[in-house]
Amino acid sequence: MERRDVLADAAIAVLARAGSRGLTHRAVDGAAGLPEGTSSYYFRTRSALLQACVDRMAARTLSEMASGAPPGPATVDGLVAAAVATVGRWLADDQERLLARWELALESTRRPELGAALQAAGARVRERVAATFAALDITEPERRAHDLVACLDGLAFDQLAGAGAPRDTAALRAAITDVVRGFTGAP
Amino acid sequence: MERRDVLADAAIAVLARAGSRGLTHRAVDGAAGLPEGTSSYYFRTRSALLQACVDRMAARTLSEMASGAPPGPATVDGLVAAAVATVGRWLADDQERLLARWELALESTRRPELGAALQAAGARVRERVAATFAALDITEPERRAHDLVACLDGLAFDQLAGAGAPRDTAALRAAITDVVRGFTGAP
Repeated sequence: MERRDVLADAAIAVLARAGSRGLTHRAVDGAAGLPEGTSSYYFRTRSALLQACVDRMAARTLSEMASGAPPGPATVDGLVAAAVATVGRWLADDQERLLARWELALESTRRPELGAALQAAGARVRERVAATFAALDITEPERRAHDLVACLDGLAFDQLAGAGAPRDTAALRAAITDVVRGFTGAP
Repeated sequence: MERRDVLADAAIAVLARAGSRGLTHRAVDGAAGLPEGTSSYYFRTRSALLQACVDRMAARTLSEMASGAPPGPATVDGLVAAAVATVGRWLADDQERLLARWELALESTRRPELGAALQAAGARVRERVAATFAALDITEPERRAHDLVACLDGLAFDQLAGAGAPRDTAALRAAITDVVRGFTGAP
């Protein structure tokens, strides 16, 4: 892996573990197991470090989307299953990326330049969902895809950082089923 | 207003504007227009300052819930209207509280002691929604109320810090209508 990517991954891990406040060049060097000064050589400012995080996260999302299985037959049940699998994978394997993404999203309210890469990655995820909605002949597919992803993100936020104890898999599946049915108009 | 509440409100404003990283005693004194040293007299540590923010936010939410109009006749349309009004008010008047709450929620993943007050306030909001679900004879009212609030929070997050341009009022109303109908099983 390229040195820049190693450092960006370490920065994402620091963001998730210690928050935006904990993101320093020194912490990134430590997390990457590299000598002090390495991350500031590649990313001179804290702003460059934040930009490296969003660029790296966006690149990983886009590469996963490109290598993912093509969408199967478009059915509401298939969409529910895909949504359950996606949120389940976020929560099981990608907690660090989720927490870092929310830190970066909040940071982007103060640094709009961070927003562009986050939006590009988010748009690609939503396009895939919109294509499924369109194949199901659901009206307003882009609007509904955007909103469904926002809701799934809200359920994941609630699960990891939310106002209650984390739910079990069955409860999460029930929630996602309700939401997808709301957006697809399925009974 | 009590001095402690003035300082807690100032800390919430600082959190929203500058993030967890910007939350320092000096910044809080400045935002409150009080002499340097005031906030550290009332809240000695940064941890005490964070706790003051969550306690203040929880107290405000609970007082709003207590003084709010009693729920009207329970209908799905009434629930949609209430949800649209609530999210609209969050986005119009309470952006600062929303951004601060998300900062605190992420901070609570690292400081579990902050979670208790956030959860108490969140539980009260959800109880009111659950009562409406129960009045509508919807099964699993508590589970569905919890999930609906998480989704509305996700739509608000998307609107303020999300992966796309903010939507207009009509689009937001359409999104909330879809979500509420998903959780109520209404066509």
